[in-house]
Amino acid sequence: MRIGFIGLGNMGQPMARNLIRAHHEVVVYNRSREPAEALAKEGAQLAEHPADAANSEVVITMLGDDKSVELIVFGDHGVLQGMKSGGIHVCMTTISPALSQRLAAAHAERKQIYVAAPVFGRPNAAAAAQLLIVAAGPPEALGKIRPVMDALGWRICVVSNQPHHANLVKICGNFLIACIIEGLGEIFALSRKSGLDPNRVWDALSEIFTAPPYKIYASTIIEGKFLPAQFKLPLGLKDVRLALEAGEQFAVPLPFASVLRDHFLSALGKGMGEMDWSAIATVIAEDAGLPAPGGTTTHAAEEER
Amino acid sequence: MRIGFIGLGNMGQPMARNLIRAHHEVVVYNRSREPAEALAKEGAQLAEHPADAANSEVVITMLGDDKSVELIVFGDHGVLQGMKSGGIHVCMTTISPALSQRLAAAHAERKQIYVAAPVFGRPNAAAAAQLLIVAAGPPEALGKIRPVMDALGWRICVVSNQPHHANLVKICGNFLIACIIEGLGEIFALSRKSGLDPNRVWDALSEIFTAPPYKIYASTIIEGKFLPAQFKLPLGLKDVRLALEAGEQFAVPLPFASVLRDHFLSALGKGMGEMDWSAIATVIAEDAGLPAPGGTTTHAAEEER
Amino acid sequence: MRIGFIGLGNMGQPMARNLIRAHHEVVVYNRSREPAEALAKEGAQLAEHPADAANSEVVITMLGDDKSVELIVFGDHGVLQGMKSGGIHVCMTTISPALSQRLAAAHAERKQIYVAAPVFGRPNAAAAAQLLIVAAGPPEALGKIRPVMDALGWRICVVSNQPHHANLVKICGNFLIACIIEGLGEIFALSRKSGLDPNRVWDALSEIFTAPPYKIYASTIIEGKFLPAQFKLPLGLKDVRLALEAGEQFAVPLPFASVLRDHFLSALGKGMGEMDWSAIATVIAEDAGLPAPGGTTTHAAEEER
Amino acid sequence: MRIGFIGLGNMGQPMARNLIRAHHEVVVYNRSREPAEALAKEGAQLAEHPADAANSEVVITMLGDDKSVELIVFGDHGVLQGMKSGGIHVCMTTISPALSQRLAAAHAERKQIYVAAPVFGRPNAAAAAQLLIVAAGPPEALGKIRPVMDALGWRICVVSNQPHHANLVKICGNFLIACIIEGLGEIFALSRKSGLDPNRVWDALSEIFTAPPYKIYASTIIEGKFLPAQFKLPLGLKDVRLALEAGEQFAVPLPFASVLRDHFLSALGKGMGEMDWSAIATVIAEDAGLPAPGGTTTHAAEEER
Repeated sequence: MRIGFIGLGNMGQPMARNLIRAHHEVVVYNRSREPAEALAKEGAQLAEHPADAANSEVVITMLGDDKSVELIVFGDHGVLQGMKSGGIHVCMTTISPALSQRLAAAHAERKQIYVAAPVFGRPNAAAAAQLLIVAAGPPEALGKIRPVMDALGWRICVVSNQPHHANLVKICGNFLIACIIEGLGEIFALSRKSGLDPNRVWDALSEIFTAPPYKIYASTIIEGKFLPAQFKLPLGLKDVRLALEAGEQFAVPLPFASVLRDHFLSALGKGMGEMDWSAIATVIAEDAGLPAPGGTTTHAAEEER
Repeated sequence: MRIGFIGLGNMGQPMARNLIRAHHEVVVYNRSREPAEALAKEGAQLAEHPADAANSEVVITMLGDDKSVELIVFGDHGVLQGMKSGGIHVCMTTISPALSQRLAAAHAERKQIYVAAPVFGRPNAAAAAQLLIVAAGPPEALGKIRPVMDALGWRICVVSNQPHHANLVKICGNFLIACIIEGLGEIFALSRKSGLDPNRVWDALSEIFTAPPYKIYASTIIEGKFLPAQFKLPLGLKDVRLALEAGEQFAVPLPFASVLRDHFLSALGKGMGEMDWSAIATVIAEDAGLPAPGGTTTHAAEEER
Repeated sequence: MRIGFIGLGNMGQPMARNLIRAHHEVVVYNRSREPAEALAKEGAQLAEHPADAANSEVVITMLGDDKSVELIVFGDHGVLQGMKSGGIHVCMTTISPALSQRLAAAHAERKQIYVAAPVFGRPNAAAAAQLLIVAAGPPEALGKIRPVMDALGWRICVVSNQPHHANLVKICGNFLIACIIEGLGEIFALSRKSGLDPNRVWDALSEIFTAPPYKIYASTIIEGKFLPAQFKLPLGLKDVRLALEAGEQFAVPLPFASVLRDHFLSALGKGMGEMDWSAIATVIAEDAGLPAPGGTTTHAAEEER
Repeated sequence: MRIGFIGLGNMGQPMARNLIRAHHEVVVYNRSREPAEALAKEGAQLAEHPADAANSEVVITMLGDDKSVELIVFGDHGVLQGMKSGGIHVCMTTISPALSQRLAAAHAERKQIYVAAPVFGRPNAAAAAQLLIVAAGPPEALGKIRPVMDALGWRICVVSNQPHHANLVKICGNFLIACIIEGLGEIFALSRKSGLDPNRVWDALSEIFTAPPYKIYASTIIEGKFLPAQFKLPLGLKDVRLALEAGEQFAVPLPFASVLRDHFLSALGKGMGEMDWSAIATVIAEDAGLPAPGGTTTHAAEEER
């Protein structure tokens, strides 16, 4: 199948590579040329414009945020202009449900088909074709792109025939992860302040809180290893903002998201923009009068001496 | 070993039974006689007063809250009066770190030994001797009670030599579970309001959020099965209050706990005191203008017709 | 002085009338014709396009929100196109600091001058030329428009030479009013639930909380008179959103604004979009299990009988 | 009239003095002797025990908190023991409604009469007999103590015949003041971070927010004058806790109070226990990455250079 692939960042590049390896005809586009040229050596064709990549049976967009998707889709020589009638746009970027609804409407007007299929997984999962893909859109189109998706992920969950619902699920998932970070941040601040080693706390609680995000973030926070960032703080704020905006669109208060927003803003205000999003644990600790997590001794232990 | 066991509720009774089966000499006390008499038929001795049960090498208290522990320990014919010098009081109730500190001090004054060992697990886990026990206290005492604990749980995590630290870990664990409930409540309200079936949301997200509490509470909330309660709402409020009180004792703000408190209060104010603590999901739904969870159709689905 | 006046809503119309009465040459523009024609009978000239009104020494825009200002200023035949070099645009709409910064930059590029001068006051204050005007911009321009402003308000507070600062002050002011509403809503819910008549509470506290917004909103909430709206709920949400966006722009957490946002959303979700913004008191009351404010008997009083 | 007066702190002493000057027969008791002896020189009689002071037609208690009232009333040689049948206990301390209910019940059992009459006003208002007194209790008793109250305050507001309602009003009032502090803290952090001088903000907004607490706290926060404390931070936390406890007693969520609690705890955690309660503005500022309020230059202003 001829597949356009737009957006070759640290997620998009390994994903496009997997499509090449699955013997698809892959036409790539990226704002900066280097990543595209690297893939050309592995068999990809280079598109001059997004429209050229979009002129395929399926075009995948894997970009940074709403704004970049808007530019690539609605702009001059953009996806909307390039797609044929009957072509399928699979937007795999984490975008707002509201933009997803606008994209669905704009494509429908031109007899193009729109599917939202955001993913869970880090770059290494993308490289191993082990993403979890949440998809929503017209059933027929979903059937057609199934082999494409199979080359990218280990499971494709179809959640609805309305594309924006897939974006909502992705946003909900990231929000739940952020809630885990906040919860851990609060209990570790409490245990440190009481003179109890967070490692002992987690040794016990890890028996119950077995989901992978707990494991990852408990150790990141306890060790205070917020650099290098696995997922940068401003991206965390972006995701919480998407949750809050969805809450506003559907008139749903999300008080946990409001707490998270305040902590992400505080972390940015304190200059932690380059750190991992779990660095909000530093804000939580400092609000308790503690130093940032990860030092060798805890507050109370020091006081006791 | 002669073991006093005080508090034969739905947790204490199966625990005491496991001690009898492990061939300990078990002396039981309960405010109401029936549960004690039932155990007497299985080999337990009956104590007239808490003090009589406490007159043992080890006395275990498994009661409802701070107030009941205070009465049983400090009251007339109480544990404090009954224990011998060198005896060990193992308090397995979920109590406040502050009370645990008072108990430690009161026992120390009388050359008695105090260990805190609260547990994670429901009554069926207690019956199966599959509790997770979080223990803290003097190492020598912990060594001595190890065989007793082994008859009750599958793992004993020692977190500190200061007893109140075990209570803090228990409180932190319950707080994290409450955070899971709130997070799920918020995302399901959001998905329902957007017209997306929460079952579809959870089909996708359950791949990531694999910890048992997610599994339990996602289905409880989606189905709206808050009756009969597995863990009643006022107990949930009690546990969040313990977290907030610990936060106050050590001067640690816990904004997620504050949100939870408000939702538990709201649920009580709305008359849900007999329901499971996950019924705070109803408060969250109603704050979004939705009916309580669990109906057969969602808000948006209804609107679409 | 020739003054363009764009936006003849319930605030703009009496303001433009006051300028006519002060013997200025007033050129009016409004999307719908009727309000403009009404003023024409009182001496105003009619502009075909915003650009025509903007072709004046001073052009005032008094519109609904960021979006309408963007359209009128940046659109075809818009303010930007119509203004002469050296002309002054006085934006009196409550807009975001971020848009104010964009407007300042766009005008500067064309050698036009931009002043922000949002106002406090209801339509009756506008009619009586009793607005409180908060102004910011280049000092020379502020001096030049002083007589124009004097015809509209009783006091002009100059807060900075950077226009967006005036918008920030306006947003802060509305946010403080919203905080008053929330605070009153919480104490009246508490007093009603305890069986205490809120009128008695306010009889005492009004001695201390003497600022006009307290007086207005205490009686609105106690009586539950949310219809007809003096200031509609969605406008309240808009203003809180402006505060939160400003908080995000400058990385400042605003936890009270987050609480307010959740309550405004909840009120919208419950279908109160036509009500006064103080109807968030109903959300607060219902979260406590109370009926909406304003009934003749209180919850506890009923229980006592 | 013979009046017992218990509690001669910075409020009680000037109040007792005003009763002496109004030619009442005043019997004073204070834990430490000095303040009592000072008043003895002005005509007061000295009581050996609280019970001796309570052996009067009216006994007033003006103490620090629930705990001190409990000790003085229920303790050996306490108020309860000392009062005659038909005597009136006027508790003017800021206590919890729950304790007020217990006091009412305990006095009723002994045919004694209980009135709650907490006050608004600082020590200088107490000295000038300019307190605002909020009273609740049996109407006949309120009539009887009217001349006593008239010697202490400029207005006596009777809010209910149930004493605990007066305590609730006092708590609500202090809560509204705390809300004012928080709101000001948030807008000043926002303005500072944007490079706008808070003095300019307040010059404008003081036209609208005219209530005395705004005036007092706006200047305290802008100048950062948190020492010496007018009202210490731990007392602020105590009052917010009273509001939250009342909220819990009557099942009323108070989200603003929860935010305040977290900020008071944070301030304590950061070591500000000796400062004025308005020092929570420092927590708010630091959460935005700003230095504590009151420096000569603002963050953004510094950046601009």
